[in-house]
Amino acid sequence: MAEPLFRRLALLGIGLIGSSVARVARERGGLAAEVVACAKTGRTLARVLELGIVDRVEESPEKAVAGADCVMLCAPVGAYAALAQTIAPHLAPGCILTDVGSTKQSVIRDVGPLVPEAVHFVPAHPLAGTEFSGPDAGFAALFEGRWCLLTPPAGTDADAVERMAEFWRRCGSMVTTMEPAHHDRVLAIVSHLPHLIAFTICGTADDLEGESRQEVMQFAASGFRDFTRIAASDPVMWRDVFLNNREALLEMLARFTEDAQAMARAVRWGDAAYIEDRILRGRKIRQSLIDLKQA
Amino acid sequence: MAEPLFRRLALLGIGLIGSSVARVARERGGLAAEVVACAKTGRTLARVLELGIVDRVEESPEKAVAGADCVMLCAPVGAYAALAQTIAPHLAPGCILTDVGSTKQSVIRDVGPLVPEAVHFVPAHPLAGTEFSGPDAGFAALFEGRWCLLTPPAGTDADAVERMAEFWRRCGSMVTTMEPAHHDRVLAIVSHLPHLIAFTICGTADDLEGESRQEVMQFAASGFRDFTRIAASDPVMWRDVFLNNREALLEMLARFTEDAQAMARAVRWGDAAYIEDRILRGRKIRQSLIDLKQA
Repeated sequence: MAEPLFRRLALLGIGLIGSSVARVARERGGLAAEVVACAKTGRTLARVLELGIVDRVEESPEKAVAGADCVMLCAPVGAYAALAQTIAPHLAPGCILTDVGSTKQSVIRDVGPLVPEAVHFVPAHPLAGTEFSGPDAGFAALFEGRWCLLTPPAGTDADAVERMAEFWRRCGSMVTTMEPAHHDRVLAIVSHLPHLIAFTICGTADDLEGESRQEVMQFAASGFRDFTRIAASDPVMWRDVFLNNREALLEMLARFTEDAQAMARAVRWGDAAYIEDRILRGRKIRQSLIDLKQA
Repeated sequence: MAEPLFRRLALLGIGLIGSSVARVARERGGLAAEVVACAKTGRTLARVLELGIVDRVEESPEKAVAGADCVMLCAPVGAYAALAQTIAPHLAPGCILTDVGSTKQSVIRDVGPLVPEAVHFVPAHPLAGTEFSGPDAGFAALFEGRWCLLTPPAGTDADAVERMAEFWRRCGSMVTTMEPAHHDRVLAIVSHLPHLIAFTICGTADDLEGESRQEVMQFAASGFRDFTRIAASDPVMWRDVFLNNREALLEMLARFTEDAQAMARAVRWGDAAYIEDRILRGRKIRQSLIDLKQA
């Protein structure tokens, strides 16, 4: 067993991701000698105590971060600004402030200016999740074989970045660093747009007249079902992701919409060659994923 | 073992669906005493012989249907008109002409007028498939627990409809009848639109600049991957589906696009309540599927 990387890890928010980190720390060791959890509701904290996955719970973020040498924001990204404001004066000198949010420019915009001089700020994004949420949904294997992207602002202490990289490697992840703006563009197309589309088509189906709506459910296995799984994800988390990656998401949605309109035009005018070509490109992408063992 | 429903079943086309029907007939019995397959290419026919899943192969559709008491069109729906023209004079009186296509108004439009007086025409659509195609992709369990929708035109012989219903029940399917126009609307939203969207977003990703495109592959697990599986489906089959369910597909795509634009507007103007509401509706749909055991 490796020596723990941190003496005390404070998790601000303990849903799917936070509770999975807590379980890695508890079940495998090597992350932190002590784990403190803070959540918005007493109900969540009570449940976390019942689950026995952390050493201590705190209702106040200030108390949770006191004396911690690693503080990890695991709340929806829209809550970061207020959280950072609350905890900034209570962060221990030399501690690492990190997060797990799906948008990174917004985190640097909202949290960056509030980080005290003596604190290292290392934004991170573990690309892992399921359609379930809350502290019961977490599990220690969640991060295994998945990427974790670090987006440290220019000038961040290299040792702090390496410690967070090692943290995620000990969770089983592959780690790389990325420019925050590039991160947000890539995630817009691989994750945020697919989720927006999935939520939208579920709403479109929900708006159908009674009888058809019922049959959508009955015959969902014909393709629709594949879209609904990711549409079951946490609403507040995704609302915040959309609002905090606005420009990249709107650009990718605009590109997608242009392409869908071109497809619609081809369907309307019977342009068989165009349709077939677009379908073949879809297959090619799928084949690339299979070749890269990402399918 | 039940007495076979038919003396001779002719499969015109022997890809994923046709070869699965052949395997049910061979492995479980009860469908047909003899199965004859016809395919467009000698290569496919040679492979079907190698697989040993039918009793006889024929290069010419005329020869394949001669003496058959059930003829099943298992080719892409765009090939039906020419096929029906070719086989119509060779259909045995009293035989059932059926199909497995994903669009039903087009089948009735293209095939219906060519059906001889003494032949029973029972269009059908087994809601089953995988992203793989060709005679190697089929398997006998494909139809188990899946729906098969029959869309007989008004005045179709009730005994012929019941025989086809029994045929699909013996394949393990649940069977119901539906109006062709209603079928096409329901399938447009549960199947055709999700496929169009999946093909489109794969193309959108494929158009990205070099570095981002590579990262789409690398980080596909974040949601994108769920869309690519159905994008691997057969191009000619899907091209024909889109072209032959044009009106319903374009209507559903227009509804979806309006909804996506409303979502884009909410993202642009920061309408958090709207976004959250749409996400919650997506979750509700998913929950309905889970409740109906269709998830």
